[in-house]
Amino acid sequence: MDEFELIRDYFDRKGEKHGVTVGIGDDGAVLTPDPAMQQVQVIDTLVAGVHFPPHTNPADIAYRTVAVNLSDIAAMGAIPRWMSLALTLNDPSAQWVKAFSAGLFAAADEFELALIGGDTTSGPTVTATVTVTGEIEKDMALLRSGAKNGDTIFVTGTLGDAAAGLKLLQRGEPNDDLSRRFLRPTPRISTGRELTGKASAAIDVSDGLAGDLRKLLAASGVGGEIDIDRLPLSEALSNNFSCEEQQNLALSGGDDYELCFTAATEAVQDIAGITEIGVVTAATGLTCRRDGDIVEVTDSGYRHFK
Amino acid sequence: MDEFELIRDYFDRKGEKHGVTVGIGDDGAVLTPDPAMQQVQVIDTLVAGVHFPPHTNPADIAYRTVAVNLSDIAAMGAIPRWMSLALTLNDPSAQWVKAFSAGLFAAADEFELALIGGDTTSGPTVTATVTVTGEIEKDMALLRSGAKNGDTIFVTGTLGDAAAGLKLLQRGEPNDDLSRRFLRPTPRISTGRELTGKASAAIDVSDGLAGDLRKLLAASGVGGEIDIDRLPLSEALSNNFSCEEQQNLALSGGDDYELCFTAATEAVQDIAGITEIGVVTAATGLTCRRDGDIVEVTDSGYRHFK
Repeated sequence: MDEFELIRDYFDRKGEKHGVTVGIGDDGAVLTPDPAMQQVQVIDTLVAGVHFPPHTNPADIAYRTVAVNLSDIAAMGAIPRWMSLALTLNDPSAQWVKAFSAGLFAAADEFELALIGGDTTSGPTVTATVTVTGEIEKDMALLRSGAKNGDTIFVTGTLGDAAAGLKLLQRGEPNDDLSRRFLRPTPRISTGRELTGKASAAIDVSDGLAGDLRKLLAASGVGGEIDIDRLPLSEALSNNFSCEEQQNLALSGGDDYELCFTAATEAVQDIAGITEIGVVTAATGLTCRRDGDIVEVTDSGYRHFK
Repeated sequence: MDEFELIRDYFDRKGEKHGVTVGIGDDGAVLTPDPAMQQVQVIDTLVAGVHFPPHTNPADIAYRTVAVNLSDIAAMGAIPRWMSLALTLNDPSAQWVKAFSAGLFAAADEFELALIGGDTTSGPTVTATVTVTGEIEKDMALLRSGAKNGDTIFVTGTLGDAAAGLKLLQRGEPNDDLSRRFLRPTPRISTGRELTGKASAAIDVSDGLAGDLRKLLAASGVGGEIDIDRLPLSEALSNNFSCEEQQNLALSGGDDYELCFTAATEAVQDIAGITEIGVVTAATGLTCRRDGDIVEVTDSGYRHFK
């Protein structure tokens, strides 16, 4: 199958899309942005064997590639609009491409995202890069740098599930609830939209809560203290891992694609699905407490402070 | 070297850039587009061993990746503005990344393009994906679909040099002039800008003149006739290849990144560096003549029509 057939058969869907004046098929797409809005642009790559097991279902690879990009859009508070796809494949079957395109459009349709262009190349390893452009009201983007001493620290959803799901997949003991959190993460677009004008800073949890929260605090020039016992954990995680493993996965597991944000508590009291986990402090660095004691949290989990 | 060090050390340059409100370092970039303009967005990937020889100088890999994207921007008539980079590397040295970033910024600075974000990942093969967003006056984008019966067909620059340069590189007999056309193609941004409002259709020559012109003619619902003897050839090409090889490389070589466009002759008479090669016809398909005779041109060159 050559590149042109690939595009025509599986990726070029007709239909009017928001702001898309010329879509797939020319040298580039022509967009007509809303003149009252700013834009947010993100890019993320997933490589087979690095970011997902090599034999992952192509529909899941595609969904996940779109979702991790949308998670960055969510962390900025923006509305998803347009996506481009660069897909490197090694001798793909039509069946593989068909499944990939189904997963791609499942995510695109769920979040009203238009595919405006792409490039398919051959190479030794499946590599999918997506770039998403979103729109946001002027000066309303949620940055990492706005956290203030005294703000509350929150997270959305539950933590640790995706890393747990991956661990079980790799062990050959997939758990539907947990593995799905890894394969088809839910970008928190609607919560991100609700947070604009309310949160002081936000980041998406892709590398693990502790590491990502540290980046937010450093960008804001403040510190924070969180209570590990308050981290939101799912029933599926609790049913499959020890208490210590649960907390380690929640702190450092990565791949959750939840949002971590700071806000005055009263500003976000009407927002559903969020959990208070700590406070912003003037002193820099992240302090973690468990049972009231300070514990040291490294990239691979926590240990008691000596 | 981890991802954050890579970005900080080599890709995060400070400085105000057109329309960039928040650059590298947050979950996404925040852009403030010109409200009077439309946008053009393109994406292209280069894979080591597929699009360039594996041991190509990393500065050339980077320059070429940016240039091939800019060529699509040129073919639409747009002004380059913002670029994102997704870079997959296999155990890179600091020296490699430094050279890559030098080549990237050489192209970016030459065409006033701002790097607004990126993602660096590990993987088995060097793979570079760039997406470029440009701006263009409303309804002025050059499309493939506007060619009209009676228009003249033009190309910019000279054809065949890049494919010739690659051939000599692969033979271990690099020719500076020709190899540079492959390694550091010149996107025809300023000519593309001059053509807006004047050309009826345009495409960039990436896969070879014959194939790319066929795409333009098909998108416009017309045909064309070109005279192979009028294809513009460089002195370096003439000095290194037979007459037949020169014409085959010019017709089918690919990688030239010149523009092929259609226009009324009088509309473009003041534009420098362009050559008339034929005319648009009402009958569909591409007819090629050599010494007045019709010859059949396939993807790998021409042969006399039987």
